[in-house]
Amino acid sequence: MDASEARGRRGRRGGRGEGEAAAAPPRVQPRLPFQPTALVSADELESIHQASLTVLEEIGMDFLHAEARRLLKEAGADVSPNSERVRLDRGLVESKLGLAPRQFTLHARNPAHHLQIGGDAVAFCSVASAPNSFDRDGGRRPGNRADYQNFIRLGHTLDSIHLWGGYPVEPADIHASVRHLDALFDMLTLSDKAIHAYSLGRERNLDGLELVRIARGIDRETLEREPSVFTIINSSSPLRLDGPMLEGIIQMASHNQPVVLTPFTLAGAMAPVTVAGAVVQQNAEALAGLVFTQTVRPGAPFVYGGFTSNVDMKSGAPAFGTPEYMKSALLGGQLARRYGVPYRSSNTNAANTLDAQAAYESVFSLWGAIMGGVNLLMHGAGWMEGGLQASFEKMVLDADLLAMVSEFLRPLSTAPDDLALDAMREVGPGGHFFGCAHTQARYRSAFFAPMISDWRNYETWREAGSPTAYDTAHRLYKQRLDSYQPPAMDPAIREELEAFVARRKAEGGVPTDF
Amino acid sequence: MDASEARGRRGRRGGRGEGEAAAAPPRVQPRLPFQPTALVSADELESIHQASLTVLEEIGMDFLHAEARRLLKEAGADVSPNSERVRLDRGLVESKLGLAPRQFTLHARNPAHHLQIGGDAVAFCSVASAPNSFDRDGGRRPGNRADYQNFIRLGHTLDSIHLWGGYPVEPADIHASVRHLDALFDMLTLSDKAIHAYSLGRERNLDGLELVRIARGIDRETLEREPSVFTIINSSSPLRLDGPMLEGIIQMASHNQPVVLTPFTLAGAMAPVTVAGAVVQQNAEALAGLVFTQTVRPGAPFVYGGFTSNVDMKSGAPAFGTPEYMKSALLGGQLARRYGVPYRSSNTNAANTLDAQAAYESVFSLWGAIMGGVNLLMHGAGWMEGGLQASFEKMVLDADLLAMVSEFLRPLSTAPDDLALDAMREVGPGGHFFGCAHTQARYRSAFFAPMISDWRNYETWREAGSPTAYDTAHRLYKQRLDSYQPPAMDPAIREELEAFVARRKAEGGVPTDF
Repeated sequence: MDASEARGRRGRRGGRGEGEAAAAPPRVQPRLPFQPTALVSADELESIHQASLTVLEEIGMDFLHAEARRLLKEAGADVSPNSERVRLDRGLVESKLGLAPRQFTLHARNPAHHLQIGGDAVAFCSVASAPNSFDRDGGRRPGNRADYQNFIRLGHTLDSIHLWGGYPVEPADIHASVRHLDALFDMLTLSDKAIHAYSLGRERNLDGLELVRIARGIDRETLEREPSVFTIINSSSPLRLDGPMLEGIIQMASHNQPVVLTPFTLAGAMAPVTVAGAVVQQNAEALAGLVFTQTVRPGAPFVYGGFTSNVDMKSGAPAFGTPEYMKSALLGGQLARRYGVPYRSSNTNAANTLDAQAAYESVFSLWGAIMGGVNLLMHGAGWMEGGLQASFEKMVLDADLLAMVSEFLRPLSTAPDDLALDAMREVGPGGHFFGCAHTQARYRSAFFAPMISDWRNYETWREAGSPTAYDTAHRLYKQRLDSYQPPAMDPAIREELEAFVARRKAEGGVPTDF
Repeated sequence: MDASEARGRRGRRGGRGEGEAAAAPPRVQPRLPFQPTALVSADELESIHQASLTVLEEIGMDFLHAEARRLLKEAGADVSPNSERVRLDRGLVESKLGLAPRQFTLHARNPAHHLQIGGDAVAFCSVASAPNSFDRDGGRRPGNRADYQNFIRLGHTLDSIHLWGGYPVEPADIHASVRHLDALFDMLTLSDKAIHAYSLGRERNLDGLELVRIARGIDRETLEREPSVFTIINSSSPLRLDGPMLEGIIQMASHNQPVVLTPFTLAGAMAPVTVAGAVVQQNAEALAGLVFTQTVRPGAPFVYGGFTSNVDMKSGAPAFGTPEYMKSALLGGQLARRYGVPYRSSNTNAANTLDAQAAYESVFSLWGAIMGGVNLLMHGAGWMEGGLQASFEKMVLDADLLAMVSEFLRPLSTAPDDLALDAMREVGPGGHFFGCAHTQARYRSAFFAPMISDWRNYETWREAGSPTAYDTAHRLYKQRLDSYQPPAMDPAIREELEAFVARRKAEGGVPTDF
């Protein structure tokens, strides 16, 4: 957000939210200080791009939405008169590249939480969309509103969770007709970080837009100028986009809100069994989403999502944080940069408990994502069990991992004083640096201090009861939840949100057939 | 090893070992398929290089070895007449750069385990030098020969342990005067992978050279042509090289055996509190070792070791696998490439038990090392507790991590058949790839199958007793140890090794003062 944007927004509502705007400087996001890693050569990347174009041109994709097919036909696509099949020729695809912005600001209700999405900036989302929640005391249980609210509270306290990537866990005890109203109300009041709205039909998209507009205290024109809520669009791989997802693109893109198109291309299941083939398909589906988004509104913010992993060929179970996942994460980044749009990847694992596997699969995922040049990291904190579980303990542990990654990304100073020649002159061969002036001036903040890592010696650690990282994460999550303080909110805005939710509930919310 | 080398070696001993030489093709080592990551710019790298040269020229280093000082004086160094201080001017340092080989072959007694050290090749060592051993049944105990032998047996079964980086655990129940004889005998008979010998005095170096010569069935000239045993030389940071280490360089380099010079520069303790400053010091110490090695024998194989980490500033405890460690790992690689020598880094962690911390610190270390372009990864499998513990369970878990890293590094094929257009044509939108011809032809070997990762669904996993990665590693280490088979060895060679050990023991081994 630049200064003129801030003035424009506040100006329209007579200064509402001005106090917040002045409250804190914009978040300092981690930025990639080095070149992302190229897994394949430029020629190989081109062969993947060309193969994806062949898929779209020759095989085509099913678009399960009549209006979407009409818009694409208008744009020049080959739309089958007898089916949902749409073929996009090379020229059409190429004509839509370069329209979406390379980067954009995603606005939160608290300007300190505005985020740059794209370029060299990185933003970390919470876990999202898990059907089950878990903590060690209560065990695994179906998602519910109490846990949902506690995840929001916990995540609000964790600085390395920059925004919400969706509902951390599904609050399944709220009826589906009004769930989005209560859930977004909770998210917008219990936290002030940027949010996501699910694309589950037109009304839910529009309700999400209205709730975030009210929460930010802005008018509709400002909302349309300032991306303020993003949506994840998953293709139904292979090669399909379903009705609610296409409707989501139409609603969100037409309001200039970011669309994150993420094919879930599990190699060997919904995608070819080779990493290269699965990424060709991922890329075809992502390009189809990009073409459609830019058809709806040229210049609408779009994020290229990669989520190619593999199955366990013995059982068919999905696997995450694997070598194949890492390769596809690097490759997805190369493709997103080729198309000049921000890149989304994820912090994943398939572990059932917070053990070494959960940690190594997560860090392997982060390795692939970060070195791949990720801009929007979904499921950054709390994801377990291939997405079937949101874990309170894992949320804290992951937040620590993300903080370590952020510190890793902080540029290294090679300023003369940091090269420390004077310290070496002072200490000399055989000395010790603990007491020297250079150390004394810096030791308090010299190194990153993790929340969880236990660096005590073995004997002291044993005397303390041999706590594992899981034990420490459990203790810390409870402590943090106990000390949670809700962020400030203008009472008038809160009332307006409540009134909107009440009105929409009185109208019956969004009709469902159950 | 090329064919003429193999012929030469066998020819000199009348075909001894020929069966082994023909037994297996040389190991396929992982190779870096992408550019290592540059943490700093070329200018910043140069400022670090120049600062290190200033340290060597102006502050100098203490060389605690009269013959070493004499050799350096001869080479043009400024050697203090009244102390152990040696100053190396810029011209002297620069004159020794470019003499050591960019890469070399490290020969094992089984040619299938010969390794390329340098270039884009990566070699993974076992844990080394831990004073304590651990498994869950027996708990933590001082290192002893029975555990030592079992680590060798276990590591021999693990393909992703390519060589021995030293004694996995110290066999402290063998008297120090003869420990190196028994320990190297065990290592050379229980395994046939390449080995390391400690630099703890001239006799031990020479015994190590002789044992490996006998085990390989070669004469002294061949040994001198074929690097067959490496040694780690640690500087006594800050800015000192002690007597046994300098003697080790003299003995090993003069026999053309690889010297791996690794300063242990713990920022805030034995090195400046900034990462940049600690790396300047690391680099000065490594360059001093390079200069001395190339003074002893121009062209002797040399590996640049980086081991800069930080302390916990609250307690002074060493920390590993931290963001600071990762940065120094990237930076060390940049410096090694600048000097045109292979790069050594490590797989480290400071955890006291095989929990999430052990895993995340290890994978963060691997991330720094691999993206830093590591050629020789020390402590690859089994290291715990900042090096104070060798763990049987961790050895298996780490071997799995290393195998995953190897798979990650395997080049991605973008051959037409791997782009899978025909598979997508066959399956089409909305289909499934499990049954298609492309999948059927590949599914058995399509993806890497880890030993430890448990991808069963939550319910099945619960019914199986909720095993953690630690549980699985424990089970697997015992299974592997039970099924261990010693590698073949020519009985004549074994007799010669036994006779050498017996003779040296009869001579009293290496005199000690205890």
